[in-house]
Amino acid sequence: MQCDPIGYIRSPYTDKFGIPRQPGLVTAAEARLELLPPFAREEAFKGIDGFSHVWLIFVFHADCLDAGWHPTVRPPRLGGRETVGVFASRAPYRPNPIGISAVEHLGLERDGRGLALRLRGIDLLDGTPVLDVKPYVPYADAIPRAGSGFTPPPLPAQRVVLSAQALDQIRTADPRGERRLRELIEQVLAQDPRPGYMDRYPERREFGLRLYELNVRWQVGPEGVTVVSVSAADGG
Amino acid sequence: MQCDPIGYIRSPYTDKFGIPRQPGLVTAAEARLELLPPFAREEAFKGIDGFSHVWLIFVFHADCLDAGWHPTVRPPRLGGRETVGVFASRAPYRPNPIGISAVEHLGLERDGRGLALRLRGIDLLDGTPVLDVKPYVPYADAIPRAGSGFTPPPLPAQRVVLSAQALDQIRTADPRGERRLRELIEQVLAQDPRPGYMDRYPERREFGLRLYELNVRWQVGPEGVTVVSVSAADGG
Repeated sequence: MQCDPIGYIRSPYTDKFGIPRQPGLVTAAEARLELLPPFAREEAFKGIDGFSHVWLIFVFHADCLDAGWHPTVRPPRLGGRETVGVFASRAPYRPNPIGISAVEHLGLERDGRGLALRLRGIDLLDGTPVLDVKPYVPYADAIPRAGSGFTPPPLPAQRVVLSAQALDQIRTADPRGERRLRELIEQVLAQDPRPGYMDRYPERREFGLRLYELNVRWQVGPEGVTVVSVSAADGG
Repeated sequence: MQCDPIGYIRSPYTDKFGIPRQPGLVTAAEARLELLPPFAREEAFKGIDGFSHVWLIFVFHADCLDAGWHPTVRPPRLGGRETVGVFASRAPYRPNPIGISAVEHLGLERDGRGLALRLRGIDLLDGTPVLDVKPYVPYADAIPRAGSGFTPPPLPAQRVVLSAQALDQIRTADPRGERRLRELIEQVLAQDPRPGYMDRYPERREFGLRLYELNVRWQVGPEGVTVVSVSAADGG
C-alpha cells in the first residue's frame, strides 16, 4: 500500500533530543498541522470542533525510514539495558514506521500559509509527515484500566530554575511571549529529557537541546535543573 | 511511503454487515492476527504479556482502497442523514485508509499455521491486513475526559431470543461450543447492527448477516431481536 502525507507538523521540536516521551506532558508546546492540497479544505474537518482531542497518524522521521528495524529494541526509559520486542514497544524503528499520538486540538486556522489544524501538547518533531487525522472517541479509545507492563509512568517533574542570563536571552528571543518560550523550556526540562542511561554517567552535569532555532544549555544538580543559556543555534 | 502487512486478521466477521461499531463490545468474538515472515518470531513480541491491550494499525478492506475518498461522509450512526468531514469521522473511506483499534490480546500461540497473536473483542473484517502492533499505554492513550462531539455512545443492548430452530442449528454448527457461536450471535445482535437509516423503513422486520461461513437471519420486534435461523451461507 502506498501512503502519502496529508500535511506536515510545525512544532518547536527541531531536534529529537528533548521531545517529551508522551503527548500531553508539555502543554506549552503549540504546534500546527499544515495541510496540503487537496486536503486543505474546511469541509474535510466539518464537526471536528465537537471533539477535544484527535489522533494523529504520522510517519516517524526520516532516520527511521532508512534505518530499518530489528525484532528487539532497548527503550530509553528502561535505561537502554533491557530488550523488549519491537511490537511490545512504541519505538520509532518499526517494520512500518507509523506512529499514533492522541493530542488536544484548538481548531482550524487559515492564514497566508494556508489551512492548518492548531495542536497543543504534541510530542512530534518539526517536519513530521502526517497520514491521517481521526477524532478521539473516549468510549472506544480510552481504556484507563488497561495493564501497561514494563512502561513506567512519567517521572515526577523536576524543579527548573532559570539563570539571569537565560531569562535575558528568552526576553530577546521571544519579546512578546508569543512563543511561550519560558513556559516551554520549563516544561520540557521538568521532564528531565536526559536519556535513561545517563544515570551511568553521574559526572556529566551540563546538557543541551534545541527548541525552534535556539540552543538551550542546562545543568542538573541535586536541587533540580538550572537553565544556563538560551542562544541562537548557529554559532550559539 | 510504502507499507506492507505484518500479518492478516482471522475473525468471525466474514462480511462488513454486523461488525460492531467499536472494539470491545462483542467479547465473544475471538480472533487471531496471523503473522507473516519475517515478523512471525516470538522475540519481536517479548514483553507483550505485560500489556493487556494493544493497538492494531490496519488497512481498511479492499473496497476502501479502490473507492477513494470524499471530503465529507455520512456516518451510519447519525442515520446517514448528516454529513461530517472525513477527518472528523472514523469512516473507512479516507485519503490513507488506515484504521486504529484498541483491543484486548490473549498472548501468542504457535501452531501448524504458524505464529499468531490471539485477540478478543475485535471489530475487524476477516482478512484485514495489519501494518503494526503497539502496546496500549494508558497514561498516553487513555483520555477519558476527552470531549466526543456528535458521536453518540453505544446503543443500549437489545434483548436477544433464539428460536428452537436457531438453537438446533447452532448446536450442529458448533457442537463443542469452541466458537462460542451462541454467545457471539447474541452479542452481535444485542448491538442492533441494522444501519442507522433503517428506522426509515419500519415495515422491514427480517434481516440477515454472515458470521464465519453461516447466514444468521433475525427479526426485530417491540420486545427485541429474535434469531430465526443459522444456516450454511452456500445455498442457505
